Amino acid sequence: MGLTYKKSGVDIGAVSQTKRKIKTLATATFNPQVLSEIGSFGAFFNLDRKFKTPVLVSSVDGVGTKLKVAFLANKHDSIGEDLVNHCVNDILVHGAKPLFFLDYIATGKLSPAVVSEIVKGLANACKKVKCSLIGGETAQMPDFYQKNEYDLAGFIVGAVEKDKIIDGRKIKPSDQIIGLASNGLHTNGYSLARKVFFDIAGWKINKYVPELKATLEEELLKTHRCYFKSLSRILESYQIKGMAHITGGGVAGNLIRILPSHGVAQIDTDSWRKPKIFGLIQKLGKISNSEMFKVFNMGIGMILVADKKDLTSIMRDSSLLGETVFHIGEIKKGTRKVNLLNL
Amino acid sequence: MGLTYKKSGVDIGAVSQTKRKIKTLATATFNPQVLSEIGSFGAFFNLDRKFKTPVLVSSVDGVGTKLKVAFLANKHDSIGEDLVNHCVNDILVHGAKPLFFLDYIATGKLSPAVVSEIVKGLANACKKVKCSLIGGETAQMPDFYQKNEYDLAGFIVGAVEKDKIIDGRKIKPSDQIIGLASNGLHTNGYSLARKVFFDIAGWKINKYVPELKATLEEELLKTHRCYFKSLSRILESYQIKGMAHITGGGVAGNLIRILPSHGVAQIDTDSWRKPKIFGLIQKLGKISNSEMFKVFNMGIGMILVADKKDLTSIMRDSSLLGETVFHIGEIKKGTRKVNLLNL
Repeated sequence: MGLTYKKSGVDIGAVSQTKRKIKTLATATFNPQVLSEIGSFGAFFNLDRKFKTPVLVSSVDGVGTKLKVAFLANKHDSIGEDLVNHCVNDILVHGAKPLFFLDYIATGKLSPAVVSEIVKGLANACKKVKCSLIGGETAQMPDFYQKNEYDLAGFIVGAVEKDKIIDGRKIKPSDQIIGLASNGLHTNGYSLARKVFFDIAGWKINKYVPELKATLEEELLKTHRCYFKSLSRILESYQIKGMAHITGGGVAGNLIRILPSHGVAQIDTDSWRKPKIFGLIQKLGKISNSEMFKVFNMGIGMILVADKKDLTSIMRDSSLLGETVFHIGEIKKGTRKVNLLNL
Repeated sequence: MGLTYKKSGVDIGAVSQTKRKIKTLATATFNPQVLSEIGSFGAFFNLDRKFKTPVLVSSVDGVGTKLKVAFLANKHDSIGEDLVNHCVNDILVHGAKPLFFLDYIATGKLSPAVVSEIVKGLANACKKVKCSLIGGETAQMPDFYQKNEYDLAGFIVGAVEKDKIIDGRKIKPSDQIIGLASNGLHTNGYSLARKVFFDIAGWKINKYVPELKATLEEELLKTHRCYFKSLSRILESYQIKGMAHITGGGVAGNLIRILPSHGVAQIDTDSWRKPKIFGLIQKLGKISNSEMFKVFNMGIGMILVADKKDLTSIMRDSSLLGETVFHIGEIKKGTRKVNLLNL
């Protein structure tokens, strides 16, 4: 017998089996706006008539090397939630409501069981924010990925009314800056964190860490928080002038992206509680304060900028909606910049 | 000095440099509907007022192991065109016009020069179909990818009027099947092709192959054809009932996706010219006919199904628009199936 595709490393049988599993999971996220079935060349989404002048807001992201922790722990059902939540937050900062999501999973040899766990996580997170998981690509790429490894990327499309776009343009001196707590690393800084815990400290993934009251696995696989449910309520009641999702680059690297040319953000880095994981990484890796704040969110997952008069009410309402909130700074006059005080 | 992010393998400096290059290339693809700049958390696209009841059609894809050929050849400016064209074709089969595109590039250690070549290819292909490259993610993932390797995925969103969606629903017996020529492998079957040429035959990437009148590199890196320019004209003039983009799974595996439950597609596999690359792969790998037709497009990149009365005009017009077209079969009564005759 001659050469076949399967012998070259691509198993079309495993693909079909995987596609059936994905279809069941994804279909559970559909709403009546989804006009197509998984399996067409393209996925159809009927734009909601509730929008008068819809602007589509889209974003693409990956999970970075947090995946390596999932591989070590052989746990694949939370990484999809990380990805969806990351993407949802990225368009939420512009005031957009998520509409649909597509994923890209690439692996050397396809394991239908693992792919199904990944998609379960994607579908769960999508359902929570009424986003439809309408398509995806599962690529088998022999010689690309190490055994039992994969990469995962996601694409989200949401919409916002044109006159409701939030982009920081209206930020002015005396505006106040509110920080919403993260629950740990979210999905950033994992290359550094892994180096510290696994190489420098030589810890195992299942080690119980008293300071964290958790195993390393539990701590490092905590799901990236999604701020959509609480903040979509806040956006209905208050004028939020700017929002920043704190990911790679940290508080300063992300907040700068929404500042107008004439605004300086003064952030008091002593004004919020830092989750213990950050102190631990810093101590074990002997990392400088400034490097820590460049790489990690340091306990702030989302930042809001609003008028002074709304500060107390926004903080109270956010808190009632389940968020842990901190008043972390204010906008001053000056040239576009983020100042981290008390670093 | 303590540990830094750079020492853990992530170079934020290289990221900034790369972002600037990408920005220049991507901005050149923008039209007035793009409301944001590259660098926001999400990308803004203002939906065209020309659409009355727009349905968004989206798709995600990768380039598969064609990337390995690009690595071997150290040529990175065409792989982006492959990806965009693949995605454009995937939504074109539903009648959709491309609106915007986002990319995901993942690599171990970021090379600004290589990323810039990749994005050049993406931007070139986007410009040709007036699609805006509005966003992307460039991920540095140490320990994931081999040296000088990367993965690349793309995500497209297009739109079609609700009453103009093409989905094969109206296909009926006596309808005719037209095949549009591919220019070679496009982006499918590369794991098998690489095994044949590099492992079994032991050829080098720069080997000149007389049968192909080209080096292996030239043949294997031929750009995946984009059918948008010609077919968008055909769609204006004729009722096309179904279209299939021939990718992984071949003619049968893709055509079946658009057949109604009561239609059998009879395809005469002797009715078109096969590019020489396919015969060469088959001979060197001793691969069966049926396996070849499952893995490769075998010379047909796109299939149209239309009423018998339109056959001659569609073939003539497509030909005038620069396509090489073949009348490859017709729809018969029976249960949903693709029959490959003369295999």
